[in-house]
Amino acid sequence: MLPPLLSPTLDEIRAAHERIKPYIHRTPMMTSTVLNTLTGASLFFKCENFQKVAAFKARGAFNTVLSLSDEEAARGVATHSSGNHAAAVALAARTRGIPAYIVMPEHSPQVKKNAVLAYGGKTILCGPTQHDRETTANEVVRQTGATFVHPYNDVRVIAGQGTAALELMEDAPLLDMVLAPVSGGGLLSGTALAVTSLSATTTVIGTEPEEADDAARSFRDKTLYPAITPPRTIADGLRTSLGSITFPIVLERVTDIVTVSEQGIIRAMRTIWEVMKIIIEPSCAVPFAAVLERKLDVRDKRVGIILTGGNVDLDNLPF
Amino acid sequence: MLPPLLSPTLDEIRAAHERIKPYIHRTPMMTSTVLNTLTGASLFFKCENFQKVAAFKARGAFNTVLSLSDEEAARGVATHSSGNHAAAVALAARTRGIPAYIVMPEHSPQVKKNAVLAYGGKTILCGPTQHDRETTANEVVRQTGATFVHPYNDVRVIAGQGTAALELMEDAPLLDMVLAPVSGGGLLSGTALAVTSLSATTTVIGTEPEEADDAARSFRDKTLYPAITPPRTIADGLRTSLGSITFPIVLERVTDIVTVSEQGIIRAMRTIWEVMKIIIEPSCAVPFAAVLERKLDVRDKRVGIILTGGNVDLDNLPF
Repeated sequence: MLPPLLSPTLDEIRAAHERIKPYIHRTPMMTSTVLNTLTGASLFFKCENFQKVAAFKARGAFNTVLSLSDEEAARGVATHSSGNHAAAVALAARTRGIPAYIVMPEHSPQVKKNAVLAYGGKTILCGPTQHDRETTANEVVRQTGATFVHPYNDVRVIAGQGTAALELMEDAPLLDMVLAPVSGGGLLSGTALAVTSLSATTTVIGTEPEEADDAARSFRDKTLYPAITPPRTIADGLRTSLGSITFPIVLERVTDIVTVSEQGIIRAMRTIWEVMKIIIEPSCAVPFAAVLERKLDVRDKRVGIILTGGNVDLDNLPF
Repeated sequence: MLPPLLSPTLDEIRAAHERIKPYIHRTPMMTSTVLNTLTGASLFFKCENFQKVAAFKARGAFNTVLSLSDEEAARGVATHSSGNHAAAVALAARTRGIPAYIVMPEHSPQVKKNAVLAYGGKTILCGPTQHDRETTANEVVRQTGATFVHPYNDVRVIAGQGTAALELMEDAPLLDMVLAPVSGGGLLSGTALAVTSLSATTTVIGTEPEEADDAARSFRDKTLYPAITPPRTIADGLRTSLGSITFPIVLERVTDIVTVSEQGIIRAMRTIWEVMKIIIEPSCAVPFAAVLERKLDVRDKRVGIILTGGNVDLDNLPF
C-alpha cells in the first residue's frame, strides 16, 4: 500500500505544537500506584481532561484557526458539531478575534448551546440529521466565506491532535505502547504519526466501543465502513466513522484496534474517578477499559493512555 | 497571651517535609482561568485530593510514624478514626513494616473498614460513642504498647500537615492569603505556622461549615467549645472540635475563621468538579465555598486554597 498522500509530517506536528503552545495547557501526565498494581503495567495517563475546553479538541482547533491567513481568518470559521470540537473552535476563534459559526441540531441540549455561546461562538440551528447539518454548514460557508474546520478529516486538525502525544513521549519516555480512543480518527492518526515517528519500538493501539466498532472492522477489512446508526454506545464522542484522510494514516501507522463492552467503559470510568480523583467522560474511559478487560497484553509494559476529555453531565452519571 | 508551649517550629515542619518526602506525593498546584474570572481573584489550589490515601492526612501520619524510635515502632501504632486519618496511619505503618491498630465503630460503612484493611491495618470494632472509641483505643494501647497517633492534637501531626503549605508557598509565591478548612485544627495550625513563618504579608483564614461552627465561636470568644453533636453538616471531615495544642496555635497565627452554608458547600464542590475536572470531597469544598459566598474579600488577591481530600461515595453524591 502507498503511504497516505495527505498526512502531516513529524515536523508539521512539531510546528503545530509551537503554534498552539501559548494558548493551550501543557496538561499533566499522571500515574497511579493503585492502577499499576491492579493492571500489572506501568500506566502513564496524559490528562487532556484538563485541557482548554476540557478536551484534546482544543489542540486541533487552535492549530487550524492559527494556521489561517489573515484574509481567511477575517471571514471566520465554521463547523457542525454539538460537542467538544464546537467549543474548541469557538474558543480558538475568539482567541484570534474572528467569528465562529457553529451549526448544531435544534434539539441539542441547552447546556451544549450555552457552552458554545460562552466561548463566543454563534450557534446556527439545523434539523436532526447528518444531512441537515452538512447542508446548513455548507450554506453558512457559502454566505460568510468562513473556513470550514472539520472535526477530524483535515491535516491541520490531525497535526494539532498529534501534539498531545509529543508531550506524552517527552514526559513518559520508553513507552511500549500508546492507547487512544478512535472515532473519526483525528486523535488516533495524529497520535500514531507522532509516536511512530519518534520511536520505532512504540506501538499505537486504537480502542473503540463494541457498540460502535466501525473503525475496528474498517481496520480489519481495509475497507472504510460507515458509523453505526443510531449510535448505541454511552461513549458519545465515539460515534463517527473514520475519514478519507485519517483512515489511510490509521492503516499505515496503527498496530491494532480493539473493542470494549459498555459495562467495561462504565467500570473504567468509575475506577479512574475513584482511584485517580479526576473526572473523565465516558468516551475517555475506552482505552483504560481495554486494559481492564484484558483486550491487550500490558503486563510489565509501559503504556501511555491519552485521557481525551472531562465533559460529563453530573446529573446523568452512568453509575 | 503567651505563645503556645507545644508548637512545631518552621525548622520542624521543614524536617517533617524531608522525612516524609520519599513516601508522599508532591501534589500539583492547579489554577483555573474560569474560576479566576468567576471570583475576581487569582486562586492557587493545592491538590491534596491527589495525595496518598487521597487526603493531606498522609502527611501527618507519615511524619508521626517515621518519627518513632525503632523500639517504639516495633510495638506498632493505634488510632481511632473511620476516615482519612485511619487510612493514612495504616498506610504509613505498612510502609514502615509495623502493625496499625485502627479502632472503628461497629456500624462504620463496610467500604471504610475495607479501606483500612486494604492498607494493611487491623480493625478493632467498638461501640458508637466517642467514649467507646477512646476506651477501646486506650485498651489496645495498654495491651500492645502501640503509640497512639492522634488525628490532630500532636506536634508531629501538626508539623506533617504543615508541609502542604510549604509546597504551596514554593509553587505559588507572594500569596495574600491561604484558606484551609478547620475541624480539629491539625491542618489549619500547621498551615498557619508554615505560612506566617515564611511570609509576614500572607494571612491564614480558617473556613468551617455554619452547621459545625465550634471553631469559629472558639476563635471569636477565645474559649474552646466542644463540637456540635449530632453533626449536621455534609462536610463529614469537619465535625471535631479544636484541641488543646491546635487551639492556641490557631489563636496566635490565624487571622479569622469564617463559616459557610451547606448549600454553599455543595455548590462549591460541584463547581470544582465541573470546572476543574477533579474530584473533591464535601469537607474539601469549604474554603472555596467561603470565596463563592463572599465571606472573604478576595478581589484582585492571590489566594491559596488547600484542597484537602477526594474521598467521596459516588453512589451518594449531594447533587
